[in-house]
Formats: sequence, structure tokens, C-alpha cells
Amino acid sequence: MVPVVRRPGDCPNCRIGRPDNCSDGKKHEAGITGLHGFMRDYFYEAPENLVLVRSKDLSKIGVLTEPLKNVVKAFEVFEKVSTRAVYQNQFSTYEGKKALIIGSACEAFLYAFVAREYGFTTYMANRHAIEDTKLQMCQNFDVNFVDYSKDVNFPDNFELDLLIDTSGDPSTIVRFLRKVNYNGVVILFGTNGKAPDGAITGNDIDWIVERNITVCGSVDAARIHYEKALDLIQKWHLGHAGVMSKMITGIYKPEDTSLFTVKPAGEIKSVIKWNDIE
Amino acid sequence: MVPVVRRPGDCPNCRIGRPDNCSDGKKHEAGITGLHGFMRDYFYEAPENLVLVRSKDLSKIGVLTEPLKNVVKAFEVFEKVSTRAVYQNQFSTYEGKKALIIGSACEAFLYAFVAREYGFTTYMANRHAIEDTKLQMCQNFDVNFVDYSKDVNFPDNFELDLLIDTSGDPSTIVRFLRKVNYNGVVILFGTNGKAPDGAITGNDIDWIVERNITVCGSVDAARIHYEKALDLIQKWHLGHAGVMSKMITGIYKPEDTSLFTVKPAGEIKSVIKWNDIE
Amino acid sequence: MVPVVRRPGDCPNCRIGRPDNCSDGKKHEAGITGLHGFMRDYFYEAPENLVLVRSKDLSKIGVLTEPLKNVVKAFEVFEKVSTRAVYQNQFSTYEGKKALIIGSACEAFLYAFVAREYGFTTYMANRHAIEDTKLQMCQNFDVNFVDYSKDVNFPDNFELDLLIDTSGDPSTIVRFLRKVNYNGVVILFGTNGKAPDGAITGNDIDWIVERNITVCGSVDAARIHYEKALDLIQKWHLGHAGVMSKMITGIYKPEDTSLFTVKPAGEIKSVIKWNDIE
Amino acid sequence: MVPVVRRPGDCPNCRIGRPDNCSDGKKHEAGITGLHGFMRDYFYEAPENLVLVRSKDLSKIGVLTEPLKNVVKAFEVFEKVSTRAVYQNQFSTYEGKKALIIGSACEAFLYAFVAREYGFTTYMANRHAIEDTKLQMCQNFDVNFVDYSKDVNFPDNFELDLLIDTSGDPSTIVRFLRKVNYNGVVILFGTNGKAPDGAITGNDIDWIVERNITVCGSVDAARIHYEKALDLIQKWHLGHAGVMSKMITGIYKPEDTSLFTVKPAGEIKSVIKWNDIE
Ligand SMILES: [Zn+2]
Ligand SMILES: [Zn+2]
Ligand SMILES: [Zn+2]
Ligand SMILES: [Zn+2]
Repeated sequence: MVPVVRRPGDCPNCRIGRPDNCSDGKKHEAGITGLHGFMRDYFYEAPENLVLVRSKDLSKIGVLTEPLKNVVKAFEVFEKVSTRAVYQNQFSTYEGKKALIIGSACEAFLYAFVAREYGFTTYMANRHAIEDTKLQMCQNFDVNFVDYSKDVNFPDNFELDLLIDTSGDPSTIVRFLRKVNYNGVVILFGTNGKAPDGAITGNDIDWIVERNITVCGSVDAARIHYEKALDLIQKWHLGHAGVMSKMITGIYKPEDTSLFTVKPAGEIKSVIKWNDIE
Repeated sequence: MVPVVRRPGDCPNCRIGRPDNCSDGKKHEAGITGLHGFMRDYFYEAPENLVLVRSKDLSKIGVLTEPLKNVVKAFEVFEKVSTRAVYQNQFSTYEGKKALIIGSACEAFLYAFVAREYGFTTYMANRHAIEDTKLQMCQNFDVNFVDYSKDVNFPDNFELDLLIDTSGDPSTIVRFLRKVNYNGVVILFGTNGKAPDGAITGNDIDWIVERNITVCGSVDAARIHYEKALDLIQKWHLGHAGVMSKMITGIYKPEDTSLFTVKPAGEIKSVIKWNDIE
Repeated sequence: MVPVVRRPGDCPNCRIGRPDNCSDGKKHEAGITGLHGFMRDYFYEAPENLVLVRSKDLSKIGVLTEPLKNVVKAFEVFEKVSTRAVYQNQFSTYEGKKALIIGSACEAFLYAFVAREYGFTTYMANRHAIEDTKLQMCQNFDVNFVDYSKDVNFPDNFELDLLIDTSGDPSTIVRFLRKVNYNGVVILFGTNGKAPDGAITGNDIDWIVERNITVCGSVDAARIHYEKALDLIQKWHLGHAGVMSKMITGIYKPEDTSLFTVKPAGEIKSVIKWNDIE
Repeated sequence: MVPVVRRPGDCPNCRIGRPDNCSDGKKHEAGITGLHGFMRDYFYEAPENLVLVRSKDLSKIGVLTEPLKNVVKAFEVFEKVSTRAVYQNQFSTYEGKKALIIGSACEAFLYAFVAREYGFTTYMANRHAIEDTKLQMCQNFDVNFVDYSKDVNFPDNFELDLLIDTSGDPSTIVRFLRKVNYNGVVILFGTNGKAPDGAITGNDIDWIVERNITVCGSVDAARIHYEKALDLIQKWHLGHAGVMSKMITGIYKPEDTSLFTVKPAGEIKSVIKWNDIE
């Protein structure tokens, strides 16, 4: 049994196994009630979520299924909305198309890796440098990291066919939105209610209109995305030896609450190990 | 022969008759060169565009094809992107779904009329009142007009499944975006480079994300949309006796340049009649 | 209230208002129980189905909604499956595309009329001549009728982009299938369990494979198709004065059972008028 | 550079890199001219096709890209046409859905393996037994082989949601078509002009109609499918150790023409090695 985070309500989307697309917000988050005070990210990694994993050597990295399922759903959205025009190149592929992921936390890496699966020339950008181990991880998947605090016009000689935001920061989104190409797709995934307000101009609106740009919010995922996520993790585990396990940057005991107060240095994905039986 | 405004370039979209979705911006606007100083809207109404119209009694209202083709294309976009989730209700229809069109110029009316074709409960909103003749036109098509300068929380007891902007004003767009429902679609059509900047908050981004909202720029149209537009005009002409011709609020001679400097009172669509032979 | 013939079961399609696409056959046909011995076609025309019709002058022709809803659903199927390749021409339209409808009963006319809405060059074919009134109806909608008993190679100088069968006869279907073009779509709608067996050869299979042809069964319809069907009838009623009412070739009393034993000459749609109150 | 077998013509599909969906048959098969007398299958395996393969240990199995690309395209067709209804189960997955592949040659195995990627319960059927090495290959991918000469009613207690034919034999296709479920999809891929004629009855047509079944011819593939095929081969090579190389059942020298006259025992994929430099 795959534990899905949202339990279905009675809307048309819930009825067909897609509570992630709930039409009325009446789906129920699973099991959150008993875990007050826990940040949502860490809940997902409870042991009951690991039953998905069949292969012994995936027991550690199977926790990546949880964030990756959301990425898989977002790319489903990308595929649907990009049918509004011919998105692929004149040879039917994504070769030459550019993807940029804003952010450098766990989800950003996973978005970048999936963009590579499509064949996008893929960039990950943040306004600060990242650790060498993270840079190596990017290199291993042919992802280009950009510290755009040092490259303020980036990208200045090409345009973005796919822009994915994991930051939730309005100003950053608008800044890169003005770099999006004709027929470009923008996936909004990150949320940050405390982010400072951004400005959006008439010219920004004009840019979206004249270029037939599509901006999509995407939240959560359905069972089908869990399955595809696990499949990708297994594929990457075999094809990129050692990289997946490096994504798990720390394993903590439940009683070690430091994790919730101090962001570990170099963190990508921290895991709480609830017990020793897996 | 239907004169389409954009002439194809060599990108994949141009190659299949969709220069409105041009991938590289290298399509060419037709014939604009010889008409410097003319506003684009009026160019379209040159007599050669009227050959589309087969029926004698449509000779006057055939000019509505030009703005309506853009509306038809935008609804094509709506249909494509709305497939990312189940958009229709549990009976497979649009009954009970709410559409709001921002603006009250010619395109806003046409967007509202097409929304009615789908079965949306349809609203047209502006921050001022509109003339009685326009109100009657709304009533004739079962469109509800809202002067939201007098109803500042509008809509306060329902959410929007389809939001269409014809104003290009960032603040207005963001204001109503926060009223958009789960799986809602927002069509950005209006452009106004001189509009004052708007603010977009972290909570606005969060709203788009958590509700799987899709925001689509849509510009121009292809030959298929001209055909459907003309078909709709003929249908409305027969089904809503007299309403279509009331959309043409003024017919001007080419030498009457007042049209370009003073907006006629109660204007919906002004037409320049190039000569007397049609 | 629109009475839909099928009532939903609990499969994913039924759950979203699409019992016409029921996944397990457990939807229920509405009200058939009380009408043993009645042919299905005539059941649909019971007075309770007429409440759909708002306009007084459509009270007679509103019964065409029942067969037309099936046609509308079939064209929905056509639109979905035809996305597997670029179906439209290089100008984005259906101009120059050829549709052939096999049969000349009521549904065949309705299929032909909808094909004309798309812009198909449209043919209706049977192996016998049809009455002059029917020919005039075809002419009115720009539909070409072919008696292919006299033109055994028809069509011999073009290929079919859309083939719709209303006969259910295997040999006839296979005969015309070999005239279907690259990327052509075949809609199977007619059923006739008593039709003689047809032969299908290795070359027929090869033809379907090498030309990427799609053959779709299509049955019944959902509420959305009723709505669109009624809309089309109203449109045609206004745009093709008098033609719709000529589709109703006979109005019978319930006690007049001759209708079930003898096919009326020149019949398109026979209606049983259950009572005088409408 | 990926060598694609078909070179584009000027139809809308060729223009966007999809000569596999050519609208007029005017695409050109690449390089066939210089190879008269060679069977098409063996042409594809010329050394210049191997440049695709980046990883050294895939040099041998990269030839599977050629047949697999066709399978990938066929599943693209499946995905498109299956959108006409809700195809997935009420949990949004393919769990519990049944796929049957007719045939047991190379393509049949590849179709079965891709069906497993989706999560179909997958059957491969032929009217004779297959060698143990082939059975083991099936087991490795969780594919069930059925010798239906011994199980004449197969499948007698379930229905098929996906039927794929690689035989081109009309009678076999019709036999299993009557086992296809509501909303089922049938992919016709095999061709055999010399196959004996089959019979198709009125009840067969009725079965297709009443169950909303879709039958799709699918031929060839585009560059995007080559890319996905190579990706799958790499994935399977890593995830199913040794199985992919067992697919290559024989490597022949160009001068060894026995291959063209005698089918090798236990053959899945025979390769002609043109020279020793790879
Ligand atoms: Zn729900
Ligand atoms: Zn272009
Ligand atoms: Zn059902
Ligand atoms: Zn072509």
C-alpha cells in the first residue's frame, strides 16, 4: 500500500484518485492530526512511507519518493499545458530547450534531474554559492548551477522554455519570468507566505500575453506520481552510482530536535529514523 | 480567402498554420508597413477582410470577426490547459461554474458571450458603470455586469473558475486572482504597458500553487479561429436579433480622424468604412 | 432537468458524469424496465425529454436532441483521438479534408451536418438512391449524397480523412476503410448484430497500421452532449430555415403500432406524441 | 546524430519532425535504395546507427533501440487516444489493468516490457510454446506467457484493457478483440500481407461500439522515440542484469546469408556486425 498524503473527498477529482487536484479543498491531509508541531516535510518520512521500497539497497533513499512525487506531478502539468502549442523543436525533441529551476534545496535538485530526463539544457539558480558536494551532484546529472548574485543579468543570451520556482519569492519569480521564451511554461511550486512583496508591471503582463506564456501552480501528487517517483529513484540509483544516497545529508533520531531549529550545513534531505526496523 | 494578420515564419508552429503561437517571434504582421500611423485595430477592418462574409445581412457585423477570433483562440487555450484536472462538474458540464471578464470594451463583451456558450454563470466587471445599451446587451446574453467600485469585495460569496482579463492592469489582475477557485484558469489577454505597477505577495503565489491555478497569456489567432468566429457571429446574429449590429457603435469615413483622438461615447466597436462597395 | 439515458454506476467514468464511458458496464439504462417491447429509439422521445427545449418553436424538433447527442459525443471522441498527429491542414483548418458517412437514416444526416460544422467536404453514402426531400436536405447543408451501388469504386480519386459508419455492416465498413487516408479517423456507431459476416484481410490490417489509422467505437452520450446537441439544433433551426422540421417525417399516436412493423416511406425521424400537452 | 529511418516531406507532420505520422506518404525512407534485397529489419542495424550509444557496455544492445523506438511511439499513441475516457483506475494508476501482446518475437517482448513500466498485469501470447530462455526473460520482467493453443478460451476470466498485435493476422486480432474491456485500446503494429483472411461479424462491430473501444494502427517512430528507447534500454540494462544482452540471440557477418533463409532457433534479435570497429 502506498500511503498518499491527501485522502479523497467527494469532488470529481477526488473521485478518480486525484485528491491532489481537489476541486473544493475538502480532501483531508492524512494523519497530520497526531503530529502537531512537526513540520510537514518531516512527517512524510515516517517509516510507514517506506513500505513502497522493494529493493533492500533503496531503503535509505526511498524517502526521496515523497518530494519527488510532487515533481513528477508538476511535470505532468507541464506536459498537459504545453500541448497548447507545438512545444518541442522541429525534430520533435526537447534538445536545445532551456530549463531553469529557482532554488537549491532538495526539490530543486529533483526538478533539475527530471528536466534532464526530458533533455532540457538545465540550470539551477540561487543568489548564493552552493557547497562542492552539491556542485558535484549537479555535474553528475549535467545540471548547470548559477549563482545569480554574481551574474545579475543571467540568463542574458538565451531564453527559458521552462521555469520552475521552488522559492515562493514573488520578486525572483517576476525577475525570471521576463526571461521566459515564446510558449514557455512556468511552474510555481515553492510557497513562502513571509516573502516580501514583489512588483509586477504592465510590461510583465504584456510579456506573458504576447508570448503565450503559461504559469501553473502545482501542489502535491497522486498515487500514480508516487509510483513514477520510486521508479525514477531506482533508475537514478543504478545509473548515477552513489549520487542518490548523497542526497540524504543527515539521519536524525526522533528525540534530536535540533533539526527543527537549525538548518544543517549542506543539507539536502534530512531524515528522521523512527526505529531500527525497516 | 481569409486574411490572417500574422504571416508564418519557419518555426514549428508557423509551419503548421499557427503563427499566433510562433516559437521565435519571426512571423510577420501582415501589411502593417503601409499603414503607419493607423492603430492596429482599424487596419483589420479594411474592406478586403469582409470577403469572409457570405450572408448579405452580415456585411456590417462581419468586422466583429477580427476581435472575436482572438477570443476563440483564448478559449482553445482554456480547453487545453483545463485538461490538467477534471474541470467540469460531476455531471460533465460547466453548469455552476463562474466566469468573470475584467473590462467592458468590445473584447470583454465577446469573451462574455463565448463564456455563455459554454454555460458559465458569467460576470463582466469594471470599476465604473456602463451605458444602458451595454447593460441591455449583457442581459440579452445573460451576462451579469458588476461595477466593482461599488462592490469592493466582489465576488464575496463565490469563487471564479475562469478569469479573463482585458485590461492589462496588474493590480486588477492580482486583485481578482485571489478570488480564483481550485483548478481555476486565468486568461491574460489585455495589455497596457502604461499601467501602474501592481504588488504581488507571497500569499498570492501561495494561492496559485495550493489551488493548482493556471494563468495563460493568449495573443492573436489562427485561420481556424477566424472560421469559428464568423460562425459564432452568424449564430448570434440569428439567435439574438439586433444585438450584434448594436455592437457596431459607429461607422466612420477614413478622413474622419476624430476617432483616433477622442473615444466615442458608448463605443463598443467603431468601424472605418473604406468605400461604399462591399 | 435533462434526462440522460444512462444512470451512473461507481466506476471512475460514472463518477465524473460520464456513464456513456462506463468502465465496467454497471451503469443503468434509465426507465427501460417499464417499456418492454418498445424499441429503444422511440423510448427516448417520451414527452419528459422535451423539457430541455426552451423556445416554443423548437418544441417539435427538440426530439432530435436524442440522436444528435450521440453524434456530438462521437465528435468529441474524434477530437481526442485525432490529437495523436497533426490532423488539420497546414493552415490549421479542416478545409480540404473529406468526411464520409455510411448510411442515410436520421443519425447519418446529423453526422453529416456536424461534419459540415467543422468544414469537412462531406459525403453521405448508401447503396441505394434516396428521396428528393432528403437530397434537398443534403444540398441545404452542402452534403454530397452518393449512391455507391452505381459508383462501385467511390471514392476513387480522393481518400477519406473521417469515416463514420451508421450501418453496423462489417463488409461495408471494411470496404470504405481501405479508402481512409493517412491519420484518418473511423467512427463506428451503427450496430447490427444480424449483419452478414465480412472478411478482413492481412492487407486491411496493413492499411490501418501503415497509415496510422484510428478506429473508434462510440456509444451514447453524457449531459454535456445533450446541451451541445440542443444548441446545434437551435442554430440549425435558425440558419437553415425549415430544414430541421423536415427531419421529423412523421408524428404518430402511441396506439398506432404500425410504426414498429413497417418502415414509413421517406422516414428520417418518426416521433410518437404521447399526449397533447408539451 | 540519431539516424531516423524516415526523412521528412512537406506535410504538417513532417514539418514538425514527425515523418512517422506523415499526412501524405511523401516522406522518404532513408538509404533503402542502396540495399536492395536486404530485409528492412537488418538495415537498421548498420553500424552508423550505433553512434547513439554513449556507454561502452551498451554497444551490443544499442541495436534494440531500433525496434524499441516503434514501441515507444505506439505507447505515445496509446496515451493520446486513452484520454477519450478515464482509463486509469480509481486510484489514478494502471494497477489491475490487463495488457496482452500477441506474438513472441523481439517487438512482442519490448511491448511487454513497456507495458510493465506502466504497471499493467502483462501477458504475452502465442499459439505455441516458447523456449525456456524466453520464458525466463518474461519472468524477469513479470510478464506472463500464454500458449493459447492449449488454453483456447484465454483469457476467460478477465478482460483486456490493452491489446497489442505484432502478428498482423486478422483472425487472431478479431479473436482477442472480443476479449477487450470497456474503454480498451487496441494497438495494431504487426503486418503480414500473406496472412489468411479473417471474418468480422456484426457482433464484433457491436462489441467495439458498445464498449467505446479504440483500435489504432501505429507505424514507425520519430526522433523523440529513439531517445526514449535508448533511455529505456539503459534503464533495463542496469535494472535487469544480463537480460538485455540475452535479447541479442545471434551476431552474424554480412557474408553469412543463412540468416535470411532460415530463422535461427530461439531467435529474438539477430544482428549483422558490419565491421569490427564500433
Ligand atoms: Zn476533492
Ligand atoms: Zn514562427
Ligand atoms: Zn460506470
Ligand atoms: Zn509528410
